[in-house]
Amino acid sequence: MLADLICVGNELLTGLIENSNSGFLSRRLWSAGIIVRESCVIADDRYAIGTALTAAMEESDLIILTGGLGPTDDDLTREAVADILGLSLALNQQWLDKLEHFFFEHGVIMPVNNRKQAFVIEGSILLENQRGTAPGLLVEKDSKLIVLLPGPPHELQMMFDETVLPILVRRNQGKLTKVKTLKCFGIGESILEEKIKEIKNWDLPAISYVARGFEVDLQIKGSGDPAAVNDSIERAENRLKAVLGSYIFGSDDDTLASLVAEMFINRKMTLALVESCSGGLLSDLITDIPGSSKFYRGGLIAYSREAKISLLNIKRELLEREGEVSETTARLMAEGARTLFNADVGIGITGIAGPESDSSQNPVGLVYIAISLSDGCDCRKLNLKGGRRTIKERSVQTTLNMLRIKLTSGQEELNGNSKAD
Amino acid sequence: MLADLICVGNELLTGLIENSNSGFLSRRLWSAGIIVRESCVIADDRYAIGTALTAAMEESDLIILTGGLGPTDDDLTREAVADILGLSLALNQQWLDKLEHFFFEHGVIMPVNNRKQAFVIEGSILLENQRGTAPGLLVEKDSKLIVLLPGPPHELQMMFDETVLPILVRRNQGKLTKVKTLKCFGIGESILEEKIKEIKNWDLPAISYVARGFEVDLQIKGSGDPAAVNDSIERAENRLKAVLGSYIFGSDDDTLASLVAEMFINRKMTLALVESCSGGLLSDLITDIPGSSKFYRGGLIAYSREAKISLLNIKRELLEREGEVSETTARLMAEGARTLFNADVGIGITGIAGPESDSSQNPVGLVYIAISLSDGCDCRKLNLKGGRRTIKERSVQTTLNMLRIKLTSGQEELNGNSKAD
Repeated sequence: MLADLICVGNELLTGLIENSNSGFLSRRLWSAGIIVRESCVIADDRYAIGTALTAAMEESDLIILTGGLGPTDDDLTREAVADILGLSLALNQQWLDKLEHFFFEHGVIMPVNNRKQAFVIEGSILLENQRGTAPGLLVEKDSKLIVLLPGPPHELQMMFDETVLPILVRRNQGKLTKVKTLKCFGIGESILEEKIKEIKNWDLPAISYVARGFEVDLQIKGSGDPAAVNDSIERAENRLKAVLGSYIFGSDDDTLASLVAEMFINRKMTLALVESCSGGLLSDLITDIPGSSKFYRGGLIAYSREAKISLLNIKRELLEREGEVSETTARLMAEGARTLFNADVGIGITGIAGPESDSSQNPVGLVYIAISLSDGCDCRKLNLKGGRRTIKERSVQTTLNMLRIKLTSGQEELNGNSKAD
Repeated sequence: MLADLICVGNELLTGLIENSNSGFLSRRLWSAGIIVRESCVIADDRYAIGTALTAAMEESDLIILTGGLGPTDDDLTREAVADILGLSLALNQQWLDKLEHFFFEHGVIMPVNNRKQAFVIEGSILLENQRGTAPGLLVEKDSKLIVLLPGPPHELQMMFDETVLPILVRRNQGKLTKVKTLKCFGIGESILEEKIKEIKNWDLPAISYVARGFEVDLQIKGSGDPAAVNDSIERAENRLKAVLGSYIFGSDDDTLASLVAEMFINRKMTLALVESCSGGLLSDLITDIPGSSKFYRGGLIAYSREAKISLLNIKRELLEREGEVSETTARLMAEGARTLFNADVGIGITGIAGPESDSSQNPVGLVYIAISLSDGCDCRKLNLKGGRRTIKERSVQTTLNMLRIKLTSGQEELNGNSKAD
């Protein structure tokens, strides 16, 4: 099955908006065993949309158009597609009612413009939009499947995963394409590649790797008979795990934060933070996880010296002698977190995120991370490169990875085996 | 001048690598007054490259191809372009010498494969690559300009800015293209459009709008004689400001956070936060701004009831009676922030980010935001829609907007005029 992607939007051609839909759909289709032949970005222009659709229908079985389903005059995708397919647009009363209800709930009268979002191509399936006012549409014509999706990524992604992908998977029945991603932290792409090359007699599915932020994703892709695919992916996974050990922290949709959260919930332990240079980013990541209130007691952003002194009871003389960015301070912050919030685990992060250093002449990128438990406190020193945001992110991801390893090894000691839970 | 972009690479079609070149080139060309007609991604395939180039040459004056200039067998852009233009490839001895020297310096013998990177299209200009082994090429044919750039973004960006852009600007001489973006908050795209349509006798540059998260960007684009462009953009800006008032919060690279930070620094005021449902996100955004330590004293993430009781001295009975998500609690949090960190302005944010409600039966999305100053406390109640992350983001952006309006109007009262600073 071949696919063409057509992303409609002047704002994409001017670069005003980054085109994340193309990458998202490409990855999803690839995982489902559908090859993207071409992906293009075109203007909000009826003629351009028509031309692109006509060309795509000559080459591909599946054509996905994104964007141009909004309420304004320059949203023309619906009209252009109907034109090319020789189909008319008709009012979908049910969606119109939903729209009117949606605006009513927000205390405003529906603008006249939004009415056009309730017009659908005749014979098409309306794809409900749970996050916006533009429904998606799915039309079949001359054994080609044409799918129209809204431009905003969070609307498109939910609609694609929940309604479009299941339809595509059903069409591909009998043959399974499956991708398993192993996620690695703390190892560079080239060292990873070298380690994998050392594996002898590899007769398993192909592997590719891609650096994604501070992680490296290892992808195993199998295709064919379902039982054989699952078996060979599992064997590949086991061999990779034997070589890479704890560099692999999870798979597929796992994140360091979600895994750490799971560990805290399973062990019925509680967490508290005192952040300085990371400025609340770790707290933000943790509270993004539904259910984090089960284990996360709270955090303090001790951004000023005064806050460290008055709220953590760290002595002024000590801060002046050792420095606010020092191992001693990080440890006191971690212990302070535990005490202040009455938690099992306390974290302290202090460092210099830049762009300038503080009065201490410490280099930008120097970061101390401490983890305090009732039976002791670990501390790590990092020398990070990059801009302010990169240093914040890297500090926080390293903290999560330290927590993961600490909690895993703690469990090992407890149970006398690994990863038992 | 019209341009087409053709990004070559299988890894882009599988989504394994995010296509950042397309966005980069689009933004650069747009700012230089060159309109990108279409941007496409195609496979490492000689026929596909040829077809795309032929189609692009029929429509555009400038065609930029990226990727496929590497040393491996699937790097075919050079060959495919030469084919279509009916030109041959010839060895560039100077570049070959450079390549051999480059490898020699790295202590390795040049792989035979890399030799092909020294073959250039006859009559083309070689664009030096200071960050890699693949040179770029620039060919002129039938008054069309065809530019080949390497795929790795850091190589492409440097080459484009230093050698390609100056050539394009020279070709466009005497004509200025300028874009001014006005940024709006608290108004939907369709209501914005309606308000703008009410402006009569619009003889000024064209306007386009795009929703970006919770903001709407309004772009005014002028082109032509430099003096006239600047004048007409200024007049357009004034007319839009007259209609949209304080919905416009800034321009171009401004963010709500950066503007609020500037206000605090200019007024020598200090800020402290107590966040609950936003979980540290506001603190994270504020500390992303270099120099935020000048005004930001710190924050407390009071994620548990116990933290609110023990650290903010809010009475347990009151929390149980009024609810943790209530106006009273938000006000006490804001006042607590001010006291705890000894700051001029305190913020309290409490709400239900979902996906489930708390024991109080309050709806997901209910959020209270309070701002406390020495002379009083304002509180706003929001009913937000969307997922957990959306509710967090919207709460935080609304808080920043409230702060902006509060600090601006405070200044008005002080000085008896608006926006004086």
